[in-house]
Amino acid sequence: MNSSFPVILVNGQAVQQISVLDRGLAYGHGLFETIRVCDGQPQLWQQHLTRLKAGCELLFIPWPEDAEVKLTQEVGELCARSDSLIKIIITAGSGGLGYAIPEAQAPMRIVIRYPLPDYPIEYTNAGIAVCTCDYRLAQQTRLAGLKHLNRLDQVLASAEWRGSKYKEGIMLDQQDRVIEGTRSNVFAVDKNGDLLTPQLSRCGVVGVMRQYLIEQAALHHIKVLEGDYSSAQLKAMPELFVCNSLIGIWPVRQWDQHDYSVGEITRRLQRLVKKLFVAQS
Amino acid sequence: MNSSFPVILVNGQAVQQISVLDRGLAYGHGLFETIRVCDGQPQLWQQHLTRLKAGCELLFIPWPEDAEVKLTQEVGELCARSDSLIKIIITAGSGGLGYAIPEAQAPMRIVIRYPLPDYPIEYTNAGIAVCTCDYRLAQQTRLAGLKHLNRLDQVLASAEWRGSKYKEGIMLDQQDRVIEGTRSNVFAVDKNGDLLTPQLSRCGVVGVMRQYLIEQAALHHIKVLEGDYSSAQLKAMPELFVCNSLIGIWPVRQWDQHDYSVGEITRRLQRLVKKLFVAQS
Repeated sequence: MNSSFPVILVNGQAVQQISVLDRGLAYGHGLFETIRVCDGQPQLWQQHLTRLKAGCELLFIPWPEDAEVKLTQEVGELCARSDSLIKIIITAGSGGLGYAIPEAQAPMRIVIRYPLPDYPIEYTNAGIAVCTCDYRLAQQTRLAGLKHLNRLDQVLASAEWRGSKYKEGIMLDQQDRVIEGTRSNVFAVDKNGDLLTPQLSRCGVVGVMRQYLIEQAALHHIKVLEGDYSSAQLKAMPELFVCNSLIGIWPVRQWDQHDYSVGEITRRLQRLVKKLFVAQS
Repeated sequence: MNSSFPVILVNGQAVQQISVLDRGLAYGHGLFETIRVCDGQPQLWQQHLTRLKAGCELLFIPWPEDAEVKLTQEVGELCARSDSLIKIIITAGSGGLGYAIPEAQAPMRIVIRYPLPDYPIEYTNAGIAVCTCDYRLAQQTRLAGLKHLNRLDQVLASAEWRGSKYKEGIMLDQQDRVIEGTRSNVFAVDKNGDLLTPQLSRCGVVGVMRQYLIEQAALHHIKVLEGDYSSAQLKAMPELFVCNSLIGIWPVRQWDQHDYSVGEITRRLQRLVKKLFVAQS
């Protein structure tokens, strides 16, 4: 296996393809997870599995009894002792014509191993510049939180800033509330040292790293305030960062015209994430 | 070729599969068309092609110079002298990890021939019962009108009424405006004989049959009023129907608790569609 190319298992078989009749392609009827693997260990594995299973229920995709065991085996098989990235896609499987969910569904289970992207270490150490995307997220409570396969919002928002000095785009909803980055969640730290992060009941993806940080904050007696925040409110905070399961935490050193230094709470949380990403420590 | 099963061409090749790395699967980064073929002739073919090409431009998918010629050849090859249904899917092709659009894109061109669904002729003659879906469409002007691959809205809305006496579900937006059916556009006829249909600048799919009917109405001196209509407004109209490229026109004989008879304008438009669906006439 050449480690610089993706290695793929589809329902446990080493094939590269799926049917063009799959509902994942036809309608985006499915979900995905992106997981960091350190020394063969998928990080926050139970959290990723839990989110995937909960998403399947909301999209009426059956979750076979052996899905968890099989995914664990397959990730183990692909990742033995490596530092890598795993993407899991679950789709509703092949279907006939039309949106109606077939009575007999055979969900597809796709596991893809990629090499870890080689982001410059300065992104973690010195932070990144981010911009506000023009593209706005719509409110859709039935899909809010899920990491489903309907991602044109993120594709179009990313197209605004890729290739520029910005390394992430911050997305607002149509009421000017900050929701998330195109591929990350957003946190700010206020002057009391409390964490502020957008609540995601109307839109946005509830990131596994976001949830981990919220739990860790509680354990370390850092208060977390999930709420509705405008970009003006968050831009006025002394510390800002974005996070996801792959990058961990990237401090924000610039957001549009506003500059920030990397603060103490951000560094504390980065140390916790560093412990999680064992192979990096 | 067994005509009761889908027959597939992927980039002109008789294969059934695409790469699991395709951005159509990963993000729903693509578009589709569903086309009725009568005696080997794809109906409203130029209109379908025009919509597909315009959609590609808005989703930053290159439209190769020979795409139209190749699609025409492939549809001709699959459909010779048959009455059938063609689904075309265009995707942004395989990509690496992440939402950013790859610099070198190789779009995928998928053509699938299905047998024509055998809807009972009563749907056309006597009409159907429709219900209002609880699921609401969100406003997203950048995607409005397009027949893109992000269709979880329609999947979830269809799940509300499939298997019931209703044959279509009417979708409203979050401001209670009528937008469309889950797989059709909606028209009403008022007591002056004018056609009313929701405008689709905020959400919804601009159907090829909808556009054909608007053009035909103009030719036949029937006024068309595209606007924002509540379900109460449309329910109060004497005639209602839904339409798409596959079914043509199905009169609505019941919408929730309201009953309708099939009106004169609906029948006039059905006769025009019948001429279009030559093999049926």
